[in-house]
Amino acid sequence: MDSSNRSHVARAPALGFTSDNIAGASPEVIEAIAASSAGQASPYGGDEFTARVERKLSEIFEREVDVFLVPTGTAANSLCLSAMTPPWGNIYCHPSSHINNDECGAPAWYTNGAKLVTVDGQSAKIDPASLHGAARVKVGDVHSTQPSCASITQATEEGGVYTLAEIEALGDVCKASSIKLHMDGSRFANALVSLGCSPAEMTWKAGVDALSFGATKNGVFAAEAIVLFDASLAPEMGYRRKRAGHLFSKMRFLSAQIDAYLTDDLWLRNARQANDAAQHLSRGLAGLSGVEVLGATGANIIFCRLPSVAIQSLLQAGFGFYHDRWEQNVVRFVTSFSTTIEDVDNLLAHVTRAVPAHGV
Amino acid sequence: MDSSNRSHVARAPALGFTSDNIAGASPEVIEAIAASSAGQASPYGGDEFTARVERKLSEIFEREVDVFLVPTGTAANSLCLSAMTPPWGNIYCHPSSHINNDECGAPAWYTNGAKLVTVDGQSAKIDPASLHGAARVKVGDVHSTQPSCASITQATEEGGVYTLAEIEALGDVCKASSIKLHMDGSRFANALVSLGCSPAEMTWKAGVDALSFGATKNGVFAAEAIVLFDASLAPEMGYRRKRAGHLFSKMRFLSAQIDAYLTDDLWLRNARQANDAAQHLSRGLAGLSGVEVLGATGANIIFCRLPSVAIQSLLQAGFGFYHDRWEQNVVRFVTSFSTTIEDVDNLLAHVTRAVPAHGV
Amino acid sequence: MDSSNRSHVARAPALGFTSDNIAGASPEVIEAIAASSAGQASPYGGDEFTARVERKLSEIFEREVDVFLVPTGTAANSLCLSAMTPPWGNIYCHPSSHINNDECGAPAWYTNGAKLVTVDGQSAKIDPASLHGAARVKVGDVHSTQPSCASITQATEEGGVYTLAEIEALGDVCKASSIKLHMDGSRFANALVSLGCSPAEMTWKAGVDALSFGATKNGVFAAEAIVLFDASLAPEMGYRRKRAGHLFSKMRFLSAQIDAYLTDDLWLRNARQANDAAQHLSRGLAGLSGVEVLGATGANIIFCRLPSVAIQSLLQAGFGFYHDRWEQNVVRFVTSFSTTIEDVDNLLAHVTRAVPAHGV
Amino acid sequence: MDSSNRSHVARAPALGFTSDNIAGASPEVIEAIAASSAGQASPYGGDEFTARVERKLSEIFEREVDVFLVPTGTAANSLCLSAMTPPWGNIYCHPSSHINNDECGAPAWYTNGAKLVTVDGQSAKIDPASLHGAARVKVGDVHSTQPSCASITQATEEGGVYTLAEIEALGDVCKASSIKLHMDGSRFANALVSLGCSPAEMTWKAGVDALSFGATKNGVFAAEAIVLFDASLAPEMGYRRKRAGHLFSKMRFLSAQIDAYLTDDLWLRNARQANDAAQHLSRGLAGLSGVEVLGATGANIIFCRLPSVAIQSLLQAGFGFYHDRWEQNVVRFVTSFSTTIEDVDNLLAHVTRAVPAHGV
Repeated sequence: MDSSNRSHVARAPALGFTSDNIAGASPEVIEAIAASSAGQASPYGGDEFTARVERKLSEIFEREVDVFLVPTGTAANSLCLSAMTPPWGNIYCHPSSHINNDECGAPAWYTNGAKLVTVDGQSAKIDPASLHGAARVKVGDVHSTQPSCASITQATEEGGVYTLAEIEALGDVCKASSIKLHMDGSRFANALVSLGCSPAEMTWKAGVDALSFGATKNGVFAAEAIVLFDASLAPEMGYRRKRAGHLFSKMRFLSAQIDAYLTDDLWLRNARQANDAAQHLSRGLAGLSGVEVLGATGANIIFCRLPSVAIQSLLQAGFGFYHDRWEQNVVRFVTSFSTTIEDVDNLLAHVTRAVPAHGV
Repeated sequence: MDSSNRSHVARAPALGFTSDNIAGASPEVIEAIAASSAGQASPYGGDEFTARVERKLSEIFEREVDVFLVPTGTAANSLCLSAMTPPWGNIYCHPSSHINNDECGAPAWYTNGAKLVTVDGQSAKIDPASLHGAARVKVGDVHSTQPSCASITQATEEGGVYTLAEIEALGDVCKASSIKLHMDGSRFANALVSLGCSPAEMTWKAGVDALSFGATKNGVFAAEAIVLFDASLAPEMGYRRKRAGHLFSKMRFLSAQIDAYLTDDLWLRNARQANDAAQHLSRGLAGLSGVEVLGATGANIIFCRLPSVAIQSLLQAGFGFYHDRWEQNVVRFVTSFSTTIEDVDNLLAHVTRAVPAHGV
Repeated sequence: MDSSNRSHVARAPALGFTSDNIAGASPEVIEAIAASSAGQASPYGGDEFTARVERKLSEIFEREVDVFLVPTGTAANSLCLSAMTPPWGNIYCHPSSHINNDECGAPAWYTNGAKLVTVDGQSAKIDPASLHGAARVKVGDVHSTQPSCASITQATEEGGVYTLAEIEALGDVCKASSIKLHMDGSRFANALVSLGCSPAEMTWKAGVDALSFGATKNGVFAAEAIVLFDASLAPEMGYRRKRAGHLFSKMRFLSAQIDAYLTDDLWLRNARQANDAAQHLSRGLAGLSGVEVLGATGANIIFCRLPSVAIQSLLQAGFGFYHDRWEQNVVRFVTSFSTTIEDVDNLLAHVTRAVPAHGV
Repeated sequence: MDSSNRSHVARAPALGFTSDNIAGASPEVIEAIAASSAGQASPYGGDEFTARVERKLSEIFEREVDVFLVPTGTAANSLCLSAMTPPWGNIYCHPSSHINNDECGAPAWYTNGAKLVTVDGQSAKIDPASLHGAARVKVGDVHSTQPSCASITQATEEGGVYTLAEIEALGDVCKASSIKLHMDGSRFANALVSLGCSPAEMTWKAGVDALSFGATKNGVFAAEAIVLFDASLAPEMGYRRKRAGHLFSKMRFLSAQIDAYLTDDLWLRNARQANDAAQHLSRGLAGLSGVEVLGATGANIIFCRLPSVAIQSLLQAGFGFYHDRWEQNVVRFVTSFSTTIEDVDNLLAHVTRAVPAHGV
C-alpha cells in the first residue's frame, strides 16, 4: 500500500487542526505492528526489529549512534536531559519550549532537580549570543546551579525551523561553553523536509549531542527514538529508561513502528504531506483580506490572526484549533501526515466565507 | 475471530518458555489497534476508546474506579506506590517481588526515596503476622522511615496464587496498621481464573486500595491499567503520570488494546489457555521419574527440578527457559495465552527423552 | 554583658561590608552556647533549651506555632517549601530572590522537582496583580506544573521592606488562589524593626503560612527557626528535617543560640544597630556629590552608584563589598549588628576622599 | 585547660548512659567557638579556621585530602554516599547500620533513589565473602540496581571495632568489584584509639575512599568532616553540600570546633577517656554474677544482659540507658568523653545492689 492510496477512499474532510497528535497512524505502521506480532521474540529489545531500527538509524545519520526507543516525547526529552546534566545543572531552553511549558515538570524530576533556565530569542529560537552570556553566569560558584546543557526544538513550537547555520551557531556556543546540546525533534522530519538537508547535517555535524527523534506526531502511534551522538551518554541510558518504566518487554511493538516509519521514506513522505498542506493553507490564508499570517510557515504549524467573528464561525462549523491562547485573535492551525489538500481547501473555503468583507 | 481459530494455522510449536512476554498480541488486539487508527480523535485520553475502557473496568469491578492507562508494569507499579507513600515511607513487599528485584529501583525513584522493606513468607507470599509486626516498628520515630503501604503480587513470582482469605488477612493487617494495600496484578487474569472468583472479591472487597491491572503478559502488546479503589489517590495521579512521560498523546493506542482485551472475555480466555497449558505441563512433568515439580501450579508458571543432562538436552533442542538461577537444577517454565497443548506435548516429549532412565 | 559594652574595647574599624554573614556572633550568644554545654541533656530536641525556644516563639508571635530549628537559611527555606508544594507545583518567587539565585537549586531538590516560577515587581517585591495572574495559568491542566505557593523575602534582597499592606495584599492573592505563602525572613528582625510592627502583624495576620525566621545574619552563629503558622505543615516536618540531615543530636547547641537571641530583645537590639548604621551610611552617602543612593534604605543593605575610581580606591584601602555585579558602578554595602557608627564614619571618610571633585 | 581539670569541680555523677550525644562539648571546643567569633571573617569556608582544619586533616591522614565540614553525621554519610553511587546503585551495608536504620531514609533521598542492600556478618561487621557475592549479582542487567559502593561503620553499632585486616579485606573486595568504600566514622576516634593504629592505616591505606569523620559524639558540639581520599569525588561535593543546605555562611563556627578537636590530641584524649570508662564498666559488669557482658567492648559501647529487676531498679535510681530493644533483658550502656571513672563506679555500685543474690 502506498500513501497515494489513502485518499482513494472517500472520506469526510478532517476538521481537526488542533495538533498533529489527533491523527491515527499510517497504514504501513499498522501493518508492521500486526506483522510484528507473529511468533515469539526476545523481550526488552533483544528482537530483530529493534536491531534493524538501530541499523537504519545509524545509516540515516551516517555514523554509529546509540538508540533507545521510548513511547512518548516527554520520556525521550527527559531521559536525554537527565543524562546531560547533574541535579545542580542549568538546562537552557526557550521560554516557549515544550520542556518548559508542557511536560508538567518532567525534566526537573528526571534530572533530580536541574533548573530550566529560559534564554529568549526571535521566533521561539534561542539566541546564540544570549546563550553565550547565560552560560557564563556564576560558573564554579557553589551557590548557583551550573551550565550543563541547552535544548532546542526542531521544528520550533511556533512552526519555524532552525536553519543549519543557526544550529551550528548554537553548537559552537555550546562547545565553547563546555555544555551539551539536545534537540527536541518531536517534528524532526517536518524540519528536515523543510530544510532539505541530511539528518547528519541537522544534528551531530552541527553540534547536537542527543536527539529526541520524534515519530508519534508524524504517522506512528506511540514511539520515539532517543538517538545519542555522544557515546558517553549511552551506558547509563539503559538503567535510566528501565527505572522510568519506559523499557517495553514487548519492545518489537515500538521497533516495528519505527521500522515501518523509516522504510521506503515513509517518515519523509508523511512530513512532506503535512508541510505541503501547511504551505497550501498558509498561502491560501495570506491571500485573504482580513487574515494575517504570522511568521514564516517552516513546517506544519501556522499562526495567523483572524477576526473574532471568523473564529466563532469556524468553531460552529466543527473545526477544531487553538485560538486566543497566545494573544487575542491569534489562531494556530496544525496539519499532519493525514491532512489532504482537500481538507485544507475545505478549511480555506470556510475561512473565506467567515471573514467579513472588510476585514477585522 | 475467536481464539479457537488460532490453532487452525499449522505452525511450528512454541519453543520459548522463558516468559509470557515473548509472545505477541492476540489477533483481536491487533485488529482493535488497526481499527482505532481511523479518523481523528481527541488526544491525551479524551477519546471514546478511553471512556469505554473506564466504563468497562467499573463494570468489571462492580463499582466506580479511577483508571489511568500506562504502557508498562513498572510504570503502573511505581505510579501506584508513589501515590501511597511519602518519601520517608516503608513499602512492605516480599523479598522475591518484582518491585524489589526487577525494576532497577523504579519505586525508590518514583517515590522520591521510599524504602522497600522486605517481609518474608512461604511461597512468595507476605506472611500477615510478619507484616503486622513490621508495621509496628518505630512508628512515629523521626529517625526511621514510616509504615506506608504493602504491595503483593497476584499471581506471585513463584507462580502461586494468594487465596481470597490470604488477601483479606493482609487487607485486615493493613487496615489495622493504617497502611494502604497495593496489588501488582501483572498476571491478574491468570490468578483470577485460577481462583474462580470475581475481580471485586480479589481486590477492593479484600482490602486492596490500588491495582496494577496487567494485560501485557496476557495478550496485549503494551498496556496496563492503574485501577484505583481509593479515590483519594486519583487527583494526583494525572500529574504523576504526565510527569513520568507515561501520558500518551494518542491514548487510543493504549485504550484500544485494553478495550479489545476486555471484550467478549478475551482476557479470561487468554488466561485460561495459559493456565490450562501450565496445568497440562505440570501434570505431565509430575508423571516423569527424575523430575520434581516444586510448589503448586496456580497460574502459568511452573518450577521444577530437572537433571543437568536433561536441561542441556532441552537447550540444545532449542527450548528457551530459565534454569539454575534460583537453585542448582531448578527450571522455570512459563506458558502464555499463545501456548497450545501441542506446544506443551512437544516440550513434554523432549523432557521424557532427556531424562535419564534412572532419574537424577 | 550588654551590647553597649562592645565598643568599650578600642578596635580597628570593620572594613567588611560584603554581607552580614562576615560578622561573628553576639557575646550573649557565645555565653549561652558555653552555658548550654554543662551537664547532660536529652538529644534531638528533647532538652529544656528547645522547649524554652518554642515557648518564646509562641509568645513573640502571640499564638501557638510549630518550631523546627535548623542551622542554615537554605535548609529553612527548602524545608518550608517542600512542605508547601507537591513535586509538580509552582513556587512563585521574585527573579531576584535568594531561593532563585543563591541556593544552588536546593528548593528544586527538596521538593523533588517543583518549579520556581518568577513573578516580577518593583524593588524586588512580587507584584500582587502579577501573582494573581500567574496563579491562574493552566490550573488543572496535567501538562503544566500547578500553583502551589509563593515565597517572599523580608527584608528583600535589595534592602527594601514589604509594608504590612503589601504583605496583606499578597496574602489575599494567595488565599484567593488557594496557594500558600512562605516568608524567607533571613533578615526578619531588620524588617521588623524597620516597620515597627509586631511579629504577628508581619506574618500570620497578613497571611503568611510558614516563616524562615532568620538569626544567623543578625548575631547568631548558625541557627534559624522554621516557624509554622499552618499547623497542617507540621506533622511531616520532623521527618523532612531528619531526612535532610538537619536534626541535631545536640540540639541545645542550636536552641541555646536562639534562646539568647530572643532574650532581653537581643534580636531587636542587634537589628536596630545594623539598621541604624545603614541609615547613617545612607544619609552620609546621599550627601556626597558623585554618589547616588539607589532605592530606599529599609533595612541594613544600601545600593549606590560610585565612580570607578572611588571603587578602586576603597578596595585598595582594604574595604570589602560587592560592586559591578548588578550593573556597572553599582555598589552594595551591608551593615550588621556589629557595625558601629565609627565603622560607618570611617567608610564615609574614605568615600569622601575617593570621590573625584566633580563627580562621575 | 586540660581534660584532667574537668573533675576538679565536685559534681553529681552522670546518670545518662543512653548515648554519647547527651554530653555537651569539651571546654576547649567552647573556648575555640568563642575565640572564633572575634572580628570579621570570609564566609562559606574562606576563613583561616577552615584552611587550618584542612591542613591538619591532611597531616593527620599523611596525604592530601579533600575536606567538607557539615554539622551532622547523617549529612556526612548521605553526602558521601550520594557522590559514590548513581541513583540506580546498590549501597551495601550491614543490617544493623545507622544508615539503614536511623537516618529516616536520608541516603535514599540524597542519592535520588539508590538502594541500601544489607550484607550480614558477625558483630555488626560486613562479611567480606558475602560482600563479594552480593557485588556480583546481576551486574550489567538493566532490570537490577547495580553494585556501587559499600559502607562500614567504625566503631560498629554494636560497639565493636573492625580490625585493620578486616577493613583491608573489605577494601580488597571493593577494589576487585569496582565499587567504592565508605566509612561511617561517627566514632572514628574511639575505634582508632582502640586499635592503636594510624588514621591513614585505618582508612585509605586499607581501601577507604570516603570517610565521615565524626566529632560530635566525641566532644564537639555539632561538626563532622567529610574526608575524601578519592579526589574524583571532590568537585561535585561543594554543590551537593550547598544544595542540601549544609554550607554554613559562618563556617568558622564549624571549623573552630574541629580545629580545637584536632589540637593537642583532644580528639584522642576524649576517645581514650570514653573507651577507658567503657573498659572499666565492662570489667566491672563481667565480675558480677547475674550479669552477662555480650560481645567484646572495643570502643565506648557495652551490651550486657541484666535481670529485669535490676533494670527497673537502675531506672528508678535515675539512670538512663536503652534496654529490651534488641532482645529481652539486653541493656546498652554508652560512655562518652565526659564520663568519669566515678560515674562508672557509681553505676556499678547500683548494678551490684540491683542484681539479685542468685542471678537472673
